[in-house]
Amino acid sequence: MTRARLETFADGVFAIAATLLIIDVAVPSSLEGPLGSALLHLWPQYFAYVVSFATIGIMWVNHHRVMQQLERVDEPFVFLNIGLLLCIAFVPFPTRVLAEFVRTDDGNAAAVLYGITLIVTSVFFGSVWLYAAYGGKLLHPDADPRMVSGITRSYAPGVPIYTAAMLVGLVSAEASALLYGLIAVFYMVSSATFGRAGE
Amino acid sequence: MTRARLETFADGVFAIAATLLIIDVAVPSSLEGPLGSALLHLWPQYFAYVVSFATIGIMWVNHHRVMQQLERVDEPFVFLNIGLLLCIAFVPFPTRVLAEFVRTDDGNAAAVLYGITLIVTSVFFGSVWLYAAYGGKLLHPDADPRMVSGITRSYAPGVPIYTAAMLVGLVSAEASALLYGLIAVFYMVSSATFGRAGE
Amino acid sequence: MTRARLETFADGVFAIAATLLIIDVAVPSSLEGPLGSALLHLWPQYFAYVVSFATIGIMWVNHHRVMQQLERVDEPFVFLNIGLLLCIAFVPFPTRVLAEFVRTDDGNAAAVLYGITLIVTSVFFGSVWLYAAYGGKLLHPDADPRMVSGITRSYAPGVPIYTAAMLVGLVSAEASALLYGLIAVFYMVSSATFGRAGE
Amino acid sequence: MTRARLETFADGVFAIAATLLIIDVAVPSSLEGPLGSALLHLWPQYFAYVVSFATIGIMWVNHHRVMQQLERVDEPFVFLNIGLLLCIAFVPFPTRVLAEFVRTDDGNAAAVLYGITLIVTSVFFGSVWLYAAYGGKLLHPDADPRMVSGITRSYAPGVPIYTAAMLVGLVSAEASALLYGLIAVFYMVSSATFGRAGE
Repeated sequence: MTRARLETFADGVFAIAATLLIIDVAVPSSLEGPLGSALLHLWPQYFAYVVSFATIGIMWVNHHRVMQQLERVDEPFVFLNIGLLLCIAFVPFPTRVLAEFVRTDDGNAAAVLYGITLIVTSVFFGSVWLYAAYGGKLLHPDADPRMVSGITRSYAPGVPIYTAAMLVGLVSAEASALLYGLIAVFYMVSSATFGRAGE
Repeated sequence: MTRARLETFADGVFAIAATLLIIDVAVPSSLEGPLGSALLHLWPQYFAYVVSFATIGIMWVNHHRVMQQLERVDEPFVFLNIGLLLCIAFVPFPTRVLAEFVRTDDGNAAAVLYGITLIVTSVFFGSVWLYAAYGGKLLHPDADPRMVSGITRSYAPGVPIYTAAMLVGLVSAEASALLYGLIAVFYMVSSATFGRAGE
Repeated sequence: MTRARLETFADGVFAIAATLLIIDVAVPSSLEGPLGSALLHLWPQYFAYVVSFATIGIMWVNHHRVMQQLERVDEPFVFLNIGLLLCIAFVPFPTRVLAEFVRTDDGNAAAVLYGITLIVTSVFFGSVWLYAAYGGKLLHPDADPRMVSGITRSYAPGVPIYTAAMLVGLVSAEASALLYGLIAVFYMVSSATFGRAGE
Repeated sequence: MTRARLETFADGVFAIAATLLIIDVAVPSSLEGPLGSALLHLWPQYFAYVVSFATIGIMWVNHHRVMQQLERVDEPFVFLNIGLLLCIAFVPFPTRVLAEFVRTDDGNAAAVLYGITLIVTSVFFGSVWLYAAYGGKLLHPDADPRMVSGITRSYAPGVPIYTAAMLVGLVSAEASALLYGLIAVFYMVSSATFGRAGE
């Protein structure tokens, strides 16, 4: 397996998972009242679409940053990546559930499902990186040690902050959804800063 | 992040967003009368499919033209691109709404939604280019200044003409839809001419 | 625009259009009788899936053969390709309609719709090639003249045979559907032979 | 046809088929009881999603291993690959049927359909490889004979074990589904070992 073909496959899954999110944004088939107000009331759908698209986009940027440090890939690394991509391709499902139920009495379960998905994804992301950097010894011989430890540090907060947002979901689905959005913004800002400092 | 991997991801989103449009072209499940006439009455669906596919195709050509001028990409540029791709992947939704409602009393809201989507997309497209050319200094050192100012000029009319077409949608959804189609034709012709002159 | 990026985008649309066909193969939601016999009665769905997937696959092979002869691409060629891809991405719709209606009284309209789609696609395919080879002068200087005239000849039968199969559809939808399948087989065999002789 | 473009198209179909699986994971539209328990009762959907995603992922790894041994591709090889990709793009359909019916009286038919799909896919996979290695003489002149015979051996168990799992489906759909999952795990482990030994 070459790095290039793994990247092609991964880029495909990232791009498709992100683009499929729009399938679930839909006007209710039994429309009551004018379309204009129905479109305005769809804001949880738009919000969920933007947060999940941005989250997948950030993960794609991170995946690229990992791949750039590698000299080669091996079979266990490829299968860890398939596990990671399995999680990312799963994201449209909790997104759809969150968008549909966030304003209902069932919102808590939806917010928790969304959180669990991102926690498992974070675990796989961490595993992919830890295996590449330490277990499988796949790094370029001349990979910058500060960059390597910087990436390792950048994975540390993933599980705790998604767990916190998920626990908030037990109390308030709306607050939890808002946190998922803020986490995406936080990652985007820190990633842009990281890129600036590290490249 | 390399230019090549950003292009792969972007090409994926453009291709998927355009191809997903066909999912929304459908014969009504409760068919009244013969299929032949039902298929003929689907013309707003066909029209919306063609206009949105062409619009996404033109944006893909423009995106390529921008990328060709760049020496490198940086993190803010990548995140601006994710925002742009988020808008392009959104296009199937207003397309579906416009096709379904253009001939109904709710057509105005559908036409306005379609217009707003393309206005926001144009704003992101302009931001991507202005950041690349002026803010982020990502251009090739030997980029042709006439090409650069030609691209800058070519983005100027986007927001005004989509705003005009959207405002027409407040009065007549059909006229607005027709304008979206004409704008696509106009862009296709001017892009072909631009390419001729600039390359 | 480079040949490589046009190929990436085209390959994406071909692959997505072919893979989306499976979305329309579905067990009726109100299942009467055992699942086993329902699955057997879905044979028009399977047949339509196989014929359309094979047809798109053959077109992808042909598209590659055209691209291989080119030294460069220009803007009008790119826009002709967007038109061609618009047709190919449209194929899932007539496939779905044909699979659903071929055994009903509305089968004729479905068979005609399928035929018209492939006729228009053939026209665009011919235009793409004729422009590349003769109008736009995009060929490699050292393109083999026998290969070039061989490709030109291979496009000649497309419109007549799809028109014939469509006209048969006015009388019998089943016979028409069978012809679409036979045409795919014929193209596959002649393409394999062509490849053998020409390479 | 170049090896590279066949890989791009194949990677696209693999990635899309795997990512489309999530469309079929859905909360019932008429929800009875709380969402939380409905999400828990969806476990056959999650299980089917994971098994099919992993199965497609493993096939993608195997496809890559085959392609790596080739010096060139020819037209019959390309058409065998289109047949293989047709099978892989079909996988979302039996996955959806299995997930929906595994716990019902119709589970047996669903398990058999899933098995037949994977048997036919295995036959195509074997044909692709046997043609490349022996019929079409497409291998690199310096391909490692032990690698070549290792790949040939690795295809031998495919049809028998999927046939066995399918036959179990005649008696118990759940047991059959469990076997499909175990086969995926077995392939993943043996593939990782194979890669270790062979590279």
